[in-house]
Amino acid sequence: MSKYAIGIDYGTLSGRAALVDLSNGRELAHSVLEYPHAVMDETLPSGKPLAPDWALQHPQDYIDVLKTTIPDVLAKSGVNAQDIIGLAIDFTACTMLPVKADGTPLCFLPDLADEPHAYVKLWKHHAAQDEANALNRIAEERGETWLARYGGKISSEWMIPKIWQILNEAPDIYAQADVFMEACDWVVWQLCGVKTRNSCTAGYKALWHKREGYPSKDFFRALDPRMENLVEEKLTGPILPLGSRAGGLTEEMARVTGLCPGIAIAVANVDAHVAVPAVVDGPGKMVAIIGTSTCHMVLGTEEHNVPGICGYVEDGIVPGYYGYEAGQSCVGDHFAWVVDTCVPASYHEEAKRQGKNIHQYLKSLCENKKPGESGLLALDWWNGNRSILVDVDLTGLILGMTLQTKPEDIYRALIEATAYGTRMIVENFRSHGVAIDAFYAAGGIAQKDPMMMQIYADVLKMPVYIAGTTQCGALGSAIMASVAAGSAAGGYDDVFEAGRHMAKVLDHHYEPIAENSALYDQIYAEYQYLHDYFGRGGCDVMKRLKALKLSLFRQ
Amino acid sequence: MSKYAIGIDYGTLSGRAALVDLSNGRELAHSVLEYPHAVMDETLPSGKPLAPDWALQHPQDYIDVLKTTIPDVLAKSGVNAQDIIGLAIDFTACTMLPVKADGTPLCFLPDLADEPHAYVKLWKHHAAQDEANALNRIAEERGETWLARYGGKISSEWMIPKIWQILNEAPDIYAQADVFMEACDWVVWQLCGVKTRNSCTAGYKALWHKREGYPSKDFFRALDPRMENLVEEKLTGPILPLGSRAGGLTEEMARVTGLCPGIAIAVANVDAHVAVPAVVDGPGKMVAIIGTSTCHMVLGTEEHNVPGICGYVEDGIVPGYYGYEAGQSCVGDHFAWVVDTCVPASYHEEAKRQGKNIHQYLKSLCENKKPGESGLLALDWWNGNRSILVDVDLTGLILGMTLQTKPEDIYRALIEATAYGTRMIVENFRSHGVAIDAFYAAGGIAQKDPMMMQIYADVLKMPVYIAGTTQCGALGSAIMASVAAGSAAGGYDDVFEAGRHMAKVLDHHYEPIAENSALYDQIYAEYQYLHDYFGRGGCDVMKRLKALKLSLFRQ
Repeated sequence: MSKYAIGIDYGTLSGRAALVDLSNGRELAHSVLEYPHAVMDETLPSGKPLAPDWALQHPQDYIDVLKTTIPDVLAKSGVNAQDIIGLAIDFTACTMLPVKADGTPLCFLPDLADEPHAYVKLWKHHAAQDEANALNRIAEERGETWLARYGGKISSEWMIPKIWQILNEAPDIYAQADVFMEACDWVVWQLCGVKTRNSCTAGYKALWHKREGYPSKDFFRALDPRMENLVEEKLTGPILPLGSRAGGLTEEMARVTGLCPGIAIAVANVDAHVAVPAVVDGPGKMVAIIGTSTCHMVLGTEEHNVPGICGYVEDGIVPGYYGYEAGQSCVGDHFAWVVDTCVPASYHEEAKRQGKNIHQYLKSLCENKKPGESGLLALDWWNGNRSILVDVDLTGLILGMTLQTKPEDIYRALIEATAYGTRMIVENFRSHGVAIDAFYAAGGIAQKDPMMMQIYADVLKMPVYIAGTTQCGALGSAIMASVAAGSAAGGYDDVFEAGRHMAKVLDHHYEPIAENSALYDQIYAEYQYLHDYFGRGGCDVMKRLKALKLSLFRQ
Repeated sequence: MSKYAIGIDYGTLSGRAALVDLSNGRELAHSVLEYPHAVMDETLPSGKPLAPDWALQHPQDYIDVLKTTIPDVLAKSGVNAQDIIGLAIDFTACTMLPVKADGTPLCFLPDLADEPHAYVKLWKHHAAQDEANALNRIAEERGETWLARYGGKISSEWMIPKIWQILNEAPDIYAQADVFMEACDWVVWQLCGVKTRNSCTAGYKALWHKREGYPSKDFFRALDPRMENLVEEKLTGPILPLGSRAGGLTEEMARVTGLCPGIAIAVANVDAHVAVPAVVDGPGKMVAIIGTSTCHMVLGTEEHNVPGICGYVEDGIVPGYYGYEAGQSCVGDHFAWVVDTCVPASYHEEAKRQGKNIHQYLKSLCENKKPGESGLLALDWWNGNRSILVDVDLTGLILGMTLQTKPEDIYRALIEATAYGTRMIVENFRSHGVAIDAFYAAGGIAQKDPMMMQIYADVLKMPVYIAGTTQCGALGSAIMASVAAGSAAGGYDDVFEAGRHMAKVLDHHYEPIAENSALYDQIYAEYQYLHDYFGRGGCDVMKRLKALKLSLFRQ
């Protein structure tokens, strides 16, 4: 008789649960809850305005996902709760929050409800760039050897700059925080009552290393004397390897979810990383999880320092391999921006008349154009550049505009720009010794957007394979849950063994079309030039305009 | 008892007639006809597709303006046709067409109705750039001294490149054309039955000079041996000074318009140029006629070669002065592009709810922002750059985009970009000896858009005065009609004398706000840098992308 696990994938805008058959990876039911507070980037719930570059979330939304989606997948699937042997979650990262010693988020305290720094800082909170810049400078001056593991640059999106911003701007909040947690670890704590941290976010986002641990007290003191004991004081809790059991489901959580108390709760994981074993079985195969942003994951058998990547962590994705990660901080968000900002009413009406959603309609207008036909070229930096420039102060650019430029041209130009950005990342890995032979696209867009996947194949000049489920995160989490439960309970004892039964890739894939690739080679050369000109100091106009904008806000 | 004149202003999308009292310049009635064929830039009336960069018009539309608007202003004003002593028109330029010896446009011939080259080439037809480039190269190699009068570069928008394109692409049409006419001169011909040309378009657009005449036969032979005798063969007709009487209204035209036969028909004029005496009375005062594009006119007492301007012509605007002209080929068209391309349905709904048109609504959302607050910077080259780069192969750019960028930010960034482009033109004039002490804005936008006028004052750091009528072209034409009729008929004998009675400026003007000017100085420095980088050969990406696009179209 089959056993099952539930994987929950916490994305930027919603949480999605999947109930999965452990014998074959088949998803029997899924359920989605859009976060009631979504992303707070303009105001707090009270209406209090936020500064530019802020992006917050409300931790209650994460709990609501558990309470809503788990009963829903149980009901939809008809599976008996007795046969569900484990639960695992994956999350955006670094998405972090300050909590009290008992796990209460500071923003739950009535007197702090109007304090922006008491909330969850979402991965794309970009207001800690000053701290990141200072951290990078100090780490470089001190010759910190761990810096090279992270491509030579720590992102403002990560744990230490975000904590440091709290200290700089709200020292009182820093003082009241007993612990700083990744949101994923905080949710696992709520599920099983045990405070743990996972080796993946600790490694990729909090500068921790399996053998070396965190950076030294000296380093933290060099940042700010008040942070000297940050690790011992506020980053407490054991760091457990991926696939571990954090604890058993509490009675209280069993009651609200309908699951059996005591079932295995796996340590948390990052959404992108957990997807890898749901798609591929070894090194040289880049898995790109394409959503609002894209994470590029690839396993390697050797250790290489690659500049401009997010980092590499030994055993950080699958035990036994070096897990390399790069990323683009804005992908699907570009297309949503076009739809929200640049699409006139007549387009919506015509889309409706044709029974298409607006994305389908825009694609129908540009899918038969040749590369270069619109004359547009964009730099896909609407949300800064994560890899390979690691600079959130860069901003988007589009050129080639004429009075004939149509919304669908802008839409396609942004798709192409994300493909060029991906090619920069791939070529950067290769030129530093990390092999990439095939490209695996995961996430909803990968299955829903053949035009985009063909553009990626044409631009990358590699075959593009498509993950067999749009719920790679949830499937990957179910794989992790099955390992946390172990074979004794009906699960598995090792990640790849679970993957061999449960991972999925579609039969259909995309081959590059030589004629298109030749045209894209020409346009990519222009992209590369502008990328380096605006991104590597040739002309810092983007940074100067952003500094001017911020100076106005601060007046 | 008062006498009256009618001025008709032929714009890019419509013709507007005004019936004006000659004693005080007051407009008693006006009437507008939108051209039925508008601008043909995608297909001919038959549906036959046009290549990129084409922009045609249908000459029947111009005749329809006469038949519709003149009876309308007569009826609305109640003025007796006997008291109307003259009619003058002004037009976009260079807007030209091939005609038979009897004045019949080639596109009226049934067997040529499907031939793009038989139609009117509108000023913004940009498909003769290859010819313009070759013409400039040859003129420079030969040391043609007239080149310096035109800022060192002849635009593809002008008469000779457009004729040459016809010869290159449709030699049969070239052969069948007995005459190439400015559309304005063709309409005057239809009104009075006399073929004349005006010194303004001949001087500014067809390389003619009051004392030197046209370029030499040698020069035209160097372009193409078949063009050696172009002037004698196909540019026939006397060239008359501004304010001259071309002839009297024909019986036939009197019948269809309701005017009296024999009244003075002035030689034609250019819309921008004719507006100058309707606004200012001497040198140092730049008149900007702001519409879909902007023309910048200033009178000077001395001769200066200024690079990158459209040109200067002695007596070309008002007898007795050097008339200097520069231009921006895309101004209001940018804002229309935003409205057509970048404004979501919700904006239109909210605008309607508030009882605003969409332009008013967009401005209400951004008028209180500070300079630099959006972080955006654009190059206003959606339709190439006329002055001071004279290059239609440049394309638009916008940078600083983020996920928070709103349509109103793009709208305002394009307004600001046109202000920066204007400042480039002003500073270029000054640095070459032409004084500019105040800025006079004319055209509908000048009265309707206080936000834009304040931005112009802030960016230019000069007071901005506003023309007293939104119909400067029609008022200027009425001034010219009064001079063509002469004092004996109840008009005037000299342009400034007429202007002293009829010209109009609003009481209210805009003073620069020092705080805004200081911020705009910073952003303008970035604009200047990008302007020169992309426009003067630092990075020719725009030209390469455009060449690629055209190569695909030609496949």
